[in-house]
Amino acid sequence: MSSQHEFQPIGKRPGLGGDSFSTQRRIRVALDQEPGDLLITGGQVVNVFNRRVEPADIVIADGRIAGVGCYLWRASRTLSASGLVILPGLIDAHMHLESTLLTPAELSRLIVPLGTTTVISDSHEVANVMGVRGIDMLAAASEGLPLDLFFMASSCVPATEWEDAGGLLGPAEVATLLSRPSVLGLAEVMDIPAVLAAGHDVLAKVEMALSARTVVDGHAAGLSGRELIAYAAAGIRSDHESTTVAEARAKCALGMLVQVREGSSAQNLGALLPLLAAGELDDSWCLVTDDIFPNDLKHHGHIDGLLRRVVAGGVSPASAVRHASYVPARHYGLVDRGALAPGYRADLVLVEDLTQFRVNTVIKGGKIAARGGQCLDYGPSPRLDRENTVHLAPLDETAFRLPLAAETCPVIEIVPDQIITRRTSRSVRRVDGDWAFDPERDVLMIASIERHRASGRIGLGLVSGFGLTCDGALGSSVAHDSHNLIIAGTNPRDMLVCARALAAQGGGFVAAAAGHVQAILPLPVAGLLSLGDADKVCRQLEDVNRAAHALGCPLAAPFGTLSFLALPVIPELRITTQGLFDVTDQRFLTLID
Amino acid sequence: MSSQHEFQPIGKRPGLGGDSFSTQRRIRVALDQEPGDLLITGGQVVNVFNRRVEPADIVIADGRIAGVGCYLWRASRTLSASGLVILPGLIDAHMHLESTLLTPAELSRLIVPLGTTTVISDSHEVANVMGVRGIDMLAAASEGLPLDLFFMASSCVPATEWEDAGGLLGPAEVATLLSRPSVLGLAEVMDIPAVLAAGHDVLAKVEMALSARTVVDGHAAGLSGRELIAYAAAGIRSDHESTTVAEARAKCALGMLVQVREGSSAQNLGALLPLLAAGELDDSWCLVTDDIFPNDLKHHGHIDGLLRRVVAGGVSPASAVRHASYVPARHYGLVDRGALAPGYRADLVLVEDLTQFRVNTVIKGGKIAARGGQCLDYGPSPRLDRENTVHLAPLDETAFRLPLAAETCPVIEIVPDQIITRRTSRSVRRVDGDWAFDPERDVLMIASIERHRASGRIGLGLVSGFGLTCDGALGSSVAHDSHNLIIAGTNPRDMLVCARALAAQGGGFVAAAAGHVQAILPLPVAGLLSLGDADKVCRQLEDVNRAAHALGCPLAAPFGTLSFLALPVIPELRITTQGLFDVTDQRFLTLID
Repeated sequence: MSSQHEFQPIGKRPGLGGDSFSTQRRIRVALDQEPGDLLITGGQVVNVFNRRVEPADIVIADGRIAGVGCYLWRASRTLSASGLVILPGLIDAHMHLESTLLTPAELSRLIVPLGTTTVISDSHEVANVMGVRGIDMLAAASEGLPLDLFFMASSCVPATEWEDAGGLLGPAEVATLLSRPSVLGLAEVMDIPAVLAAGHDVLAKVEMALSARTVVDGHAAGLSGRELIAYAAAGIRSDHESTTVAEARAKCALGMLVQVREGSSAQNLGALLPLLAAGELDDSWCLVTDDIFPNDLKHHGHIDGLLRRVVAGGVSPASAVRHASYVPARHYGLVDRGALAPGYRADLVLVEDLTQFRVNTVIKGGKIAARGGQCLDYGPSPRLDRENTVHLAPLDETAFRLPLAAETCPVIEIVPDQIITRRTSRSVRRVDGDWAFDPERDVLMIASIERHRASGRIGLGLVSGFGLTCDGALGSSVAHDSHNLIIAGTNPRDMLVCARALAAQGGGFVAAAAGHVQAILPLPVAGLLSLGDADKVCRQLEDVNRAAHALGCPLAAPFGTLSFLALPVIPELRITTQGLFDVTDQRFLTLID
Repeated sequence: MSSQHEFQPIGKRPGLGGDSFSTQRRIRVALDQEPGDLLITGGQVVNVFNRRVEPADIVIADGRIAGVGCYLWRASRTLSASGLVILPGLIDAHMHLESTLLTPAELSRLIVPLGTTTVISDSHEVANVMGVRGIDMLAAASEGLPLDLFFMASSCVPATEWEDAGGLLGPAEVATLLSRPSVLGLAEVMDIPAVLAAGHDVLAKVEMALSARTVVDGHAAGLSGRELIAYAAAGIRSDHESTTVAEARAKCALGMLVQVREGSSAQNLGALLPLLAAGELDDSWCLVTDDIFPNDLKHHGHIDGLLRRVVAGGVSPASAVRHASYVPARHYGLVDRGALAPGYRADLVLVEDLTQFRVNTVIKGGKIAARGGQCLDYGPSPRLDRENTVHLAPLDETAFRLPLAAETCPVIEIVPDQIITRRTSRSVRRVDGDWAFDPERDVLMIASIERHRASGRIGLGLVSGFGLTCDGALGSSVAHDSHNLIIAGTNPRDMLVCARALAAQGGGFVAAAAGHVQAILPLPVAGLLSLGDADKVCRQLEDVNRAAHALGCPLAAPFGTLSFLALPVIPELRITTQGLFDVTDQRFLTLID
């Protein structure tokens, strides 16, 4: 039909519409005029529209649901769901994929068997390293997976002007990303001061996203009152930073989708659950993980695990499912998914019951993708090419010499289980005018080494809280948000070993002692992601943690803690490639004066 | 900033985003760093997100809400809402604007004071007469009004292949319409047989709308079971044809928005209200009028009147308001409206209470648009040019000669207050082989005269139910869906008078007797809309009704009844320009054999 060729689809996202051919077949299958591809019989179906759970068969054609109900349908394959309950595929509406350390293919292999079929990622870690190219790389690496990976265009890359990031997403780059079919809007607007100052660039990005009829995610940490109103007035309509009932209530009242976050580092479900159970947020909430490590996914589950807790906390099962599927799908304009109804994408999760949500089978786009906790083979994984993004200027032990002006110095103090730090003042050991390790004092040297452009820039400072009692060093190429190398250690030799190992591997988590690498988790993709499978990554993560603990470190997740010490947007004191930065006073400190 | 110029907005609808300049100001106003334009103090505010009604001030800047809450704000103008309750502007999500007989400007003048600030019109009447040009004409005529008029691209123009319509909207024309900024999707897909037959053209239109990330409206009259499933499977996600609780339940379960219709001819609120009050449709319902006459709007109100009844029926006021504002706005992608929250368009309705919903003041885009039931002046109304679309071939009394093969004939039988008709068989009076009026028998001649292309095509038949006892005729240029002239009368002379009067006026409702026009309501715009104001139109409508009643017609709305007798998609018997059409058997009947 010629007219169709004249028609210019407006911002078509793959799969939001179908095509005439499959629609025709779907109608015929619904009418039982021809067999479908898959018929699921005998299950109980969760209906997210009327929140009922009722027996129904589901027939699927060309990857979409053709019919749901108590009718006789035929299909070339039948699957019994007798004794099982069927949910729409689960959605994690806000995740930084990079925190899992896994490639999209490996993440898929880990979470699809848990019932997650759609993830919306703000991949601002990879964007800080590689810019638009990094997000494009992840999008390409997610093609053909049984997990649909969507992205938000990261709004704050780099996070501040004090950052030596590898990538930059200005308004032009954000515009480029918004034109990508897998990008659903603007990612969490973290630069609250810029919004409240009505900053031109940040508002230009917001406007672009709204003009493109997409959504803008928020990050309204700690905001309340008039400032929260002003933040919402910018057009920002979601937030995952509510830690109290009062915050969540206030955000809901202003029309923001309350994304209840339960990840590895920040966990808010316990605090907000009573509000959900009381129905006080009405339709305005969903479940997200934000930052989650692979071992937590492995041991505690993903959205399935949160559903279990939400239902145990008093939310009706059908409502809980609605908020883990339909509500986020609708919010992000993913009108093809989130419900078990005719025309919807056939993303289905068969669970044993609505209390434990133990997943029996997962169907993605009409195909069985996982059974009994295992992903089925879906053909070759899309490849991620190894490309070393760790570029260091020549470096020797002298780089880690820290002259001190006095024996009492400003020190970054780690606050266990939180990403804030304290600025403290400590008396330290000084030898020949330079800082020197004292096992009695729990103070390490910390270095931030610019690694994107081999500029040789290195910032040095002191940190307390790693608790090392033996000589050694811990290093990481994951260092929010610029992801320069961050290395904490007792001596220049081991710190240099860490730096060289990270440069050689293209990134990772490393522990060194006695001049040798003790354990390493290589993260060769942008210095952020492993190329190994989930099991191997979990094992290597345990290895590096064990090596850190062997040096005396008592922290549960030493590399997680390390990775946040370079983030100059969160109080109080941080290390950057340009030196020690006081976030509260917005100025650099010196140790040498 | 150069980057903004490189950005191609994807299908930007005016006002979905704002612009950086006004966003900056909105933020500063929210923070009380500068005064807003309008501050509304002391009112109770209905929050559609958490369904609470709480005291709050609202500050507005550049047509949008900058702040809502109990904070001190400044503005160049202050309005006290003390003792009043503030709702978001009300939305009629499905209306055929033409049924009001009013221009957009006059409709606005009538319903904005009732609190309606957004109407989504399926203007398929004007499309049947003028095609795309007709919808463009109405869109142009709505610019600058305090009523936002959006359109759906009519999906079934002409309604069937048996129609002599003036306009045609094939897939190419639908594509053109979908590219218009004021078009929100595909209008009610009335051609159910085509959908169930998986017809290529209708599905092509559906696909276009879905690909453009817009919605597709349904018209699933009488559909149930497998057929309703197949209809939904096409991607159709709303319906306004539920007349029973069971129908509404079934549609909700399939993910369709149940548009509860309460218009002049079809009224379903009474039947569905218990379902709404019980919360059984959850979030899946809104309120629409479909077809409503101006006198009904004048006497019974618009969405405000429906809110009154919905709340009296047991729906909580805040929920009722949510379903008359936020729910339809979200369904149609109008993300800028439907709530009183920061960043939303400042469309506000100040009512006296949440039981009577008597409107005190209406604010549209931040400006006071109506007070105490009267629209405020908003500058010159956009003009609609007079263009006679009634084109008749030369016509004389012989055109209305109806030879009969027998004295017993098939006759269209009107079913009072319904738009279906019965096919009946009647013994009629025959003089010289032609039909002749007999005051004892309640049978009139009915003519459908092609009026778009002056083809001279005329179909004749017989109709029972108008109850004329004196000689005379009733004529109309509103005749669904093709809007040819339709004239019912006792004799050729008065029928010819009607035809000529309609041709002279460019359309209208007319009653003739004794060779003269007795009363006429001119509808010169496409033969469908008056250029008069609402009062005048109501008066003229009463005049023509009175003239019909003087001829003996007992029907409450004789011209409404007349206008549906040519619609060959609804059973059982209809008159078309090609003759009497049996809808059930899908064939033409003959009276002359």
